[in-house]
Amino acid sequence: MNMGVATVRLKVGTKGDGAVLDLTQQVNEAVKKSRFQSGVATVFVPGSTAGVTTAEFEPGVARDLRAVLMRLIPPEGDYWHNRIDDNGHAHIQAALLGPSVAVPFSDRTVLLGTWQQVVLVDFDTRPRQREVICQIVGE
Amino acid sequence: MNMGVATVRLKVGTKGDGAVLDLTQQVNEAVKKSRFQSGVATVFVPGSTAGVTTAEFEPGVARDLRAVLMRLIPPEGDYWHNRIDDNGHAHIQAALLGPSVAVPFSDRTVLLGTWQQVVLVDFDTRPRQREVICQIVGE
Amino acid sequence: MNMGVATVRLKVGTKGDGAVLDLTQQVNEAVKKSRFQSGVATVFVPGSTAGVTTAEFEPGVARDLRAVLMRLIPPEGDYWHNRIDDNGHAHIQAALLGPSVAVPFSDRTVLLGTWQQVVLVDFDTRPRQREVICQIVGE
Repeated sequence: MNMGVATVRLKVGTKGDGAVLDLTQQVNEAVKKSRFQSGVATVFVPGSTAGVTTAEFEPGVARDLRAVLMRLIPPEGDYWHNRIDDNGHAHIQAALLGPSVAVPFSDRTVLLGTWQQVVLVDFDTRPRQREVICQIVGE
Repeated sequence: MNMGVATVRLKVGTKGDGAVLDLTQQVNEAVKKSRFQSGVATVFVPGSTAGVTTAEFEPGVARDLRAVLMRLIPPEGDYWHNRIDDNGHAHIQAALLGPSVAVPFSDRTVLLGTWQQVVLVDFDTRPRQREVICQIVGE
Repeated sequence: MNMGVATVRLKVGTKGDGAVLDLTQQVNEAVKKSRFQSGVATVFVPGSTAGVTTAEFEPGVARDLRAVLMRLIPPEGDYWHNRIDDNGHAHIQAALLGPSVAVPFSDRTVLLGTWQQVVLVDFDTRPRQREVICQIVGE
């Protein structure tokens, strides 16, 4: 079977302020709907105030992840970016977490651990609709 | 030569507790054993209490990386996740470090720096056997 | 159109010490000069004292990103690596930020947000010439 690329655009509504959203089901569906058996799904968020990583998606971890980032990079800190906006902390939290994660798949199934989900963390100071790119390269 | 995907499963035994393990030789061997000249090796750890990055693998850097993460996200902190488990810090350390790194290769050789290794950092509170996925997409 | 791999080596001069450099134009040009319509551009820095992520590239965010990392992982901290060198903090900052980011592209255009750039952050304690790999896998 030939190699190829499939671009799937996931839509998520988020409250911002460190909200953690589980993208796993949408990523897995995108992989299963593609014509590929194995490859890599790159999950990438356009925008500079949100990040993508993996985590066990349970309410405690979601709260802890937000709390640690808000403690290390507090919204009330002194940021140069806040001379032109109000979300300086969100930009730095997002840059540190990173905008993408590359998830391998095999036999049409993402190779995540049992307690591991693909999550979007939205650090911005307002609710918004986000589009997340799931770029699948496979065969 | 045609593009393709190769899935290599690396086995590593780890003590956890911030242990840093060098995966470079296994990744390089996986690349050399594949039929590909150039491409990307995505090194991904299934599970939500370990991460993958690159670092100079010498005992000092390994100690420093563990020490910094334990200082910033201490095991004795107050984590919601610890109401159901004992490794709340490990989950957050792993989510921040990220589960994967994408390493390009060319002429059958990974394009790492001379003093740069692919490392697994296991944050969990107990020793375990880990399986790390090396997903190679190349031509 | 067939899948393939293109390796583009970007050259950047950097002052180090947390300098943030915008690679977006070079990455976008590499994508446009390739023969591929869609795929993933993996931007990877060889070396263990620099990292790659995305951020809004404006002087405030660049200053803030440097300031936060220098606050969390200060140069004057006590690092084991400093028994053999002077840049222990740079190694840990780089390992945390990570050496690579995977940027999807479609219609020959990288799918970055409007205010999102691909940035190199060089943490080393001296100016240097860096080579950054832009590994494009596409069709």
